Amino acid sequence: MRRIVTLTTDFGTTDGYVGEVKGVLLSHAPDADIVDITHDIPPQDVERARLTVARIWRRFPEGSIHVVVVDPGVGSARAALAVASDGRFLVGPDNGVLSPALLFPNARVVTLNVPTGASATFHGRDVFAPAAAALARGATIDALGTEARSPIVRRTPEPTRRADGAIDGEIIVVDRFGNAVTNLISLRGGMIEVGSLAIPIRRTYADVKPGEPIAVVGSSGFIEIAIRDGDAARALKLARGTHVILRNA
Amino acid sequence: MRRIVTLTTDFGTTDGYVGEVKGVLLSHAPDADIVDITHDIPPQDVERARLTVARIWRRFPEGSIHVVVVDPGVGSARAALAVASDGRFLVGPDNGVLSPALLFPNARVVTLNVPTGASATFHGRDVFAPAAAALARGATIDALGTEARSPIVRRTPEPTRRADGAIDGEIIVVDRFGNAVTNLISLRGGMIEVGSLAIPIRRTYADVKPGEPIAVVGSSGFIEIAIRDGDAARALKLARGTHVILRNA
Amino acid sequence: MRRIVTLTTDFGTTDGYVGEVKGVLLSHAPDADIVDITHDIPPQDVERARLTVARIWRRFPEGSIHVVVVDPGVGSARAALAVASDGRFLVGPDNGVLSPALLFPNARVVTLNVPTGASATFHGRDVFAPAAAALARGATIDALGTEARSPIVRRTPEPTRRADGAIDGEIIVVDRFGNAVTNLISLRGGMIEVGSLAIPIRRTYADVKPGEPIAVVGSSGFIEIAIRDGDAARALKLARGTHVILRNA
Repeated sequence: MRRIVTLTTDFGTTDGYVGEVKGVLLSHAPDADIVDITHDIPPQDVERARLTVARIWRRFPEGSIHVVVVDPGVGSARAALAVASDGRFLVGPDNGVLSPALLFPNARVVTLNVPTGASATFHGRDVFAPAAAALARGATIDALGTEARSPIVRRTPEPTRRADGAIDGEIIVVDRFGNAVTNLISLRGGMIEVGSLAIPIRRTYADVKPGEPIAVVGSSGFIEIAIRDGDAARALKLARGTHVILRNA
Repeated sequence: MRRIVTLTTDFGTTDGYVGEVKGVLLSHAPDADIVDITHDIPPQDVERARLTVARIWRRFPEGSIHVVVVDPGVGSARAALAVASDGRFLVGPDNGVLSPALLFPNARVVTLNVPTGASATFHGRDVFAPAAAALARGATIDALGTEARSPIVRRTPEPTRRADGAIDGEIIVVDRFGNAVTNLISLRGGMIEVGSLAIPIRRTYADVKPGEPIAVVGSSGFIEIAIRDGDAARALKLARGTHVILRNA
Repeated sequence: MRRIVTLTTDFGTTDGYVGEVKGVLLSHAPDADIVDITHDIPPQDVERARLTVARIWRRFPEGSIHVVVVDPGVGSARAALAVASDGRFLVGPDNGVLSPALLFPNARVVTLNVPTGASATFHGRDVFAPAAAALARGATIDALGTEARSPIVRRTPEPTRRADGAIDGEIIVVDRFGNAVTNLISLRGGMIEVGSLAIPIRRTYADVKPGEPIAVVGSSGFIEIAIRDGDAARALKLARGTHVILRNA
């Protein structure tokens, strides 16, 4: 049966590591349909991987298998996990990258058995790819390990509400376009303040002139700060963690 | 039926946007065979996307579906298009990226209906991926929208001929290797002048010594300026729009 | 029949060259299953391509076809090759990139016929993709050319042993994480010296504190120099060719 196996890693592609993972997958599960999500997560950036997983894991059809390897603790005592959640499967290290699926109702999670002879530095190839291939061949997660009791869960930081109704939030990620995604939600417009700048929340980039800052409800549902035809993060010096304030209309 | 769906975007891969598009495609058209062309078009570089489409769209077998999303006007009044041309299909914004297929004889083009609830900033996921999936399932473009009367068309700038037979042209793109592709064609050798430098047109890079400049008829049929085992654009300060002159032999 | 065709190139992805290769492959072999290994080999870095091929070629199932195009000599007199080795197939230029398969017992190799009309600068599209497609459709390498007698073979440089038992080696590649892979093997621990620094060989990164240097047996079997949660090549000024010494325990 054709089974989708997606790959989200920080391996880059220059070194052949991704190629090794794909070779192992296809050797063990010849009918797997491999889909690259990204291999460009900044090295060891667990938080960025978590946000990518949040975006994609439920977009794929039921039965899909997501391999997520951003793994600074490889070879240490950190567990390797397989998760079954909302009809999809995920494998990856126990460092929070799988949190979006772990937090979904009725998620189940096991600690993977590590094959003897597995490299201490490349569990993507020697632990996660074989586990994903087994799932692609129809294995259940229970066949791959034993129940994990308290996997590490990471969450997007929660905004906080002030007495006057303003809401303190922060930038959680800057994307390729220089758009800065916040942890804020607004249903009624309003303004985003960053430093001394107040930016109106509008519908889309074209609602302001080229070069002007704008805030929009982005495609993940959170408010983003952008500059039309420009790079907001660079121009406004925004980075992960930058403080922002939402004042509703 | 297995249908090829190619992706050409400026999304980069670090943010999961490409992953979302792939997930939507495979959820709506489980038998689609997704092929990455590139996600590294420089952000919002419509011209670069157009040149990439020109290279690839007819290389794929009939029935292939090309998704092209370089879309600075997303969410504005710009139309979303689907094109049927020479047996292939293309979807993308009405900003010129689909020109090579639009200019082909007997091309047909419709303005896509935008689904209610589509994000105002991510038509790749919410408009173009569903349209491509519908085509992959066998829909005609007429089922997806209404005829578009005057889609935007962009063309490679035309060279101009002088009274003495010399031809003025320009660099239209610099590639990864630093080779500078012109808008000039030559069937009979000759010289390319750029600034005070005259570069002979030869057959291939190996026809000069390492480090020497050379002009060749490149793989797209246009004359390219290269430096053997080097980066011509950097060494000779060539960029899109740089003026060059062809003097035939 | 579904046949895996992998791609390893230095084309980058911004220019559409990879897209053209994929289009040609799928036009000639519609059932090919294309797998990207990398398009990010540094331009014309034959040695890096060879090391990538070494990592991946036997990881894929028998019958797989590896297309390897890092080809500074394109259009010159250098031959184009097809190799059959250990049940896999490879196509690429005769410059050493295919060495790992050529050095395997019972490898067979032919010089590919170059189709008339092939571009002198893009054999990936016009020579190697059609050859790979023919193999995917079931052709033998003998149908594609004539036996090659002395293809170019490149080898990882051999370490040398001193009278006192110390072994002189070198860095052969630096990976994305800044880990520096040597040409040294150790079964019994010991120390790696680089300049005035002596680095213990341990099992995995987590065996030292963050920021500390460590040597480990990497996933390719060679000793690598790393810094936990850091970039060893940058911090310790390691590059391809840097001299290192192994002193066994």
